[in-house]
Amino acid sequence: MKNRRILIVGGLAAGPSAAAKAKRSNPNAEIILFEAGETVSYGICEAPYAISGLIEDEEKLVKYSPEKLQQEKGVAVKTLHRVENILPTKHTILVRDLRNHSIIEYDYDKLVLAMGSVPRRLKVSGEDGRNVFHLKSREDTLNIINYMKTESPKQAVIIGGGYIGMEMAEAFRLRGLDTTMLHQFNLPMEGLELETRERVLEELKKNDVQFVTNTKIEAFQQDTAGKVKHIITNRGSFEADIVILSLGVEPNVELAKAAKVRLGSNNGILTDERQQTNIEDVYAAGDCCEVKNIVTGKPMYLPLASIASRSGWVAGENAAGGRATFKGAIRAMAVKIFNLQVTQVGISSDEAKQSGFKVITDLIHAPSRNELMPGSEDLTIKFIIDQRTKRLLGANLFSCCGAVLRANTLAVAIQHKMTIDDISRFDLIYAPPYAPLWDPILVVANQAKKKII
Amino acid sequence: MKNRRILIVGGLAAGPSAAAKAKRSNPNAEIILFEAGETVSYGICEAPYAISGLIEDEEKLVKYSPEKLQQEKGVAVKTLHRVENILPTKHTILVRDLRNHSIIEYDYDKLVLAMGSVPRRLKVSGEDGRNVFHLKSREDTLNIINYMKTESPKQAVIIGGGYIGMEMAEAFRLRGLDTTMLHQFNLPMEGLELETRERVLEELKKNDVQFVTNTKIEAFQQDTAGKVKHIITNRGSFEADIVILSLGVEPNVELAKAAKVRLGSNNGILTDERQQTNIEDVYAAGDCCEVKNIVTGKPMYLPLASIASRSGWVAGENAAGGRATFKGAIRAMAVKIFNLQVTQVGISSDEAKQSGFKVITDLIHAPSRNELMPGSEDLTIKFIIDQRTKRLLGANLFSCCGAVLRANTLAVAIQHKMTIDDISRFDLIYAPPYAPLWDPILVVANQAKKKII
Repeated sequence: MKNRRILIVGGLAAGPSAAAKAKRSNPNAEIILFEAGETVSYGICEAPYAISGLIEDEEKLVKYSPEKLQQEKGVAVKTLHRVENILPTKHTILVRDLRNHSIIEYDYDKLVLAMGSVPRRLKVSGEDGRNVFHLKSREDTLNIINYMKTESPKQAVIIGGGYIGMEMAEAFRLRGLDTTMLHQFNLPMEGLELETRERVLEELKKNDVQFVTNTKIEAFQQDTAGKVKHIITNRGSFEADIVILSLGVEPNVELAKAAKVRLGSNNGILTDERQQTNIEDVYAAGDCCEVKNIVTGKPMYLPLASIASRSGWVAGENAAGGRATFKGAIRAMAVKIFNLQVTQVGISSDEAKQSGFKVITDLIHAPSRNELMPGSEDLTIKFIIDQRTKRLLGANLFSCCGAVLRANTLAVAIQHKMTIDDISRFDLIYAPPYAPLWDPILVVANQAKKKII
Repeated sequence: MKNRRILIVGGLAAGPSAAAKAKRSNPNAEIILFEAGETVSYGICEAPYAISGLIEDEEKLVKYSPEKLQQEKGVAVKTLHRVENILPTKHTILVRDLRNHSIIEYDYDKLVLAMGSVPRRLKVSGEDGRNVFHLKSREDTLNIINYMKTESPKQAVIIGGGYIGMEMAEAFRLRGLDTTMLHQFNLPMEGLELETRERVLEELKKNDVQFVTNTKIEAFQQDTAGKVKHIITNRGSFEADIVILSLGVEPNVELAKAAKVRLGSNNGILTDERQQTNIEDVYAAGDCCEVKNIVTGKPMYLPLASIASRSGWVAGENAAGGRATFKGAIRAMAVKIFNLQVTQVGISSDEAKQSGFKVITDLIHAPSRNELMPGSEDLTIKFIIDQRTKRLLGANLFSCCGAVLRANTLAVAIQHKMTIDDISRFDLIYAPPYAPLWDPILVVANQAKKKII
């Protein structure tokens, strides 16, 4: 009997995760992973820290070289191979070898789609300038690092005030660049609560990032060498030596669409809990997929490495003949913005209203540890609660310290549909150097209880 | 109609908590709190940090002066008043005014017992030396601080290797004293897992604390001024300029016992979920009580400030006519030992075996944040699991960073009787500066799953 052959499309995060898990689950299976670029298994989330210099050696972001993935995980890796067609009825794919442009046909027993995402573009003139960068691949990372080394830019402009924008603002400031952030709204970080967004803006200003609100980019003016020197906007013209476009990403689904793989309303691939698509023997995982939001029960688009890894595992295990499930995510996110830990778990108050919850919110500031201890700083927590069921739907936490891991405790509460009564009964640690007698989590839960009763 | 009168016995932690909550719940009630000492509402958990000098002003440990408790919370406070008898059938108590030794009778509608705990003694000769201290009250704290100021001791001996012993070892080392710890067993911190205890010992040694194992104290040799100069033990004689006895505490229940209040097998007062004792209209809270262990379902003795505050609230609210409940505790503890965060949540593997669980354990070391980030250090987690139900019963975590707040996430899992499958599905934050792609919690849960299946 022929061994099962599993083909994996895409090598950044979900793909290697699926490939390795498939091989572990079914050592007799033949696993082949195709990647259009040169690099697989790259830690793109750490890229801002390699650019800032906090991580000194960028090469360490490559977790597995193709050779290592092959040797250690038993996965055949074909880089510079772009999958161009899926023929589900024939159980084959057509792959272009980018080195010689030949097309090769591979048949599969199971196929895992992990094409990831593509960065959004502005679609204005001059956007292709050679000092305009996305941060979506190893190539991007290396290009930015090399450009900074060889051209010593003084003035950075970041377009977009989301997660990557924040991390790049810190990276540029650490490198000593003047940094301007052009944003389309009046506050950074859409999706977070108003109070969080205001605090983020304050932190940017404290660290000399010029934040320009309500900006619409009209054109990039390039010099004769193809470098953008000025960015023309409705708020005036901004000088730039280096430009980062951080406008978010979209699922990379052209290939899937052509093969009639079903997409959701966020344009990501829809799968069931086993990461199976509507097409027989075709699984999908990672940033090219939508994921079930555990709070609302509806699919959302949430391109996070943590979700890519876990959904990749599940797709790989099932492609190999297992019966794993991925029940969805609540959205658990954090970002370091200079001295601020900013976190969101669950849904926002706006999302909660749109989802038909009767929303009540509560916000507190409370010391992150015993307030007499050196280093104690206030932590801010906002709870988003469904008044009918008293369930915690979401929370924002921010502080210089202790916000991220406390958000994880609330993530568990949200995932398990706990009420604020449950939370107010949490038996949490009191230890003066680390946490106050009443942990901020208990403070906000107790205060919210009074509001609801 | 006469207003309800609620009497509170004891002013350290549970008492003020009960008093304030009772007044808030029932503003018409008359609340009188009796305290034999001069101080109420004292942060004894912070005392080691006042002794080390990390907290500069010891006075800040007094959270409410008697006057402030009266003014801000509406509680009549009688310090230097020792309650000597409870007469439940008459609904009265007899109180000695320690200033003039007179006895006064007070009648009550509801009585709350919050006498706290008393430090264990060795009962060997010389133990009353004037340089031998417990750390159980403001008086103890001030005596230690004053003694160190006026007598400049060089050699500290700590008897007992538990939580307070650890904190005092750090305090003395910060103050530059040579520090010796005499302990009755071969490792510090009974109740924690073997691996944790070994790591704690290593940390003590790293910080030049001489740890003497299997020590039995035979006598304290005092000089003519009543100061202990030598401690005679089965392991030889140890010189000392200052001695701390940290042997743990026992419930302070003489008063309750005389009034036929029912005690448990740990000699603490037994209450129901409403903090009511077996005697009508008599409630109890804090360190004089036992508390239900949520994991085993059985009463345990766990004198923690966090439990005192919460059980105090419940006793106070119910005494005032409310219907609050305190469902018990899992045991959630942490201590700073020099550069180590040491935590325990839930029960130990020994306790689990004794409670009839089929115990399986799993231990991992994993990076506390993305391992490429500066400051990333390994965190150790040990899981104690019931093999039959896959429930997490307890965990030990230790690391230089990120252990305490992660322990809180596991505390919630334990309190809500979650399985390792539940935990392996936790949607936790990935953010390189704070947490790795696979949080150590997920690493240990995934590894433990393999062991069980």
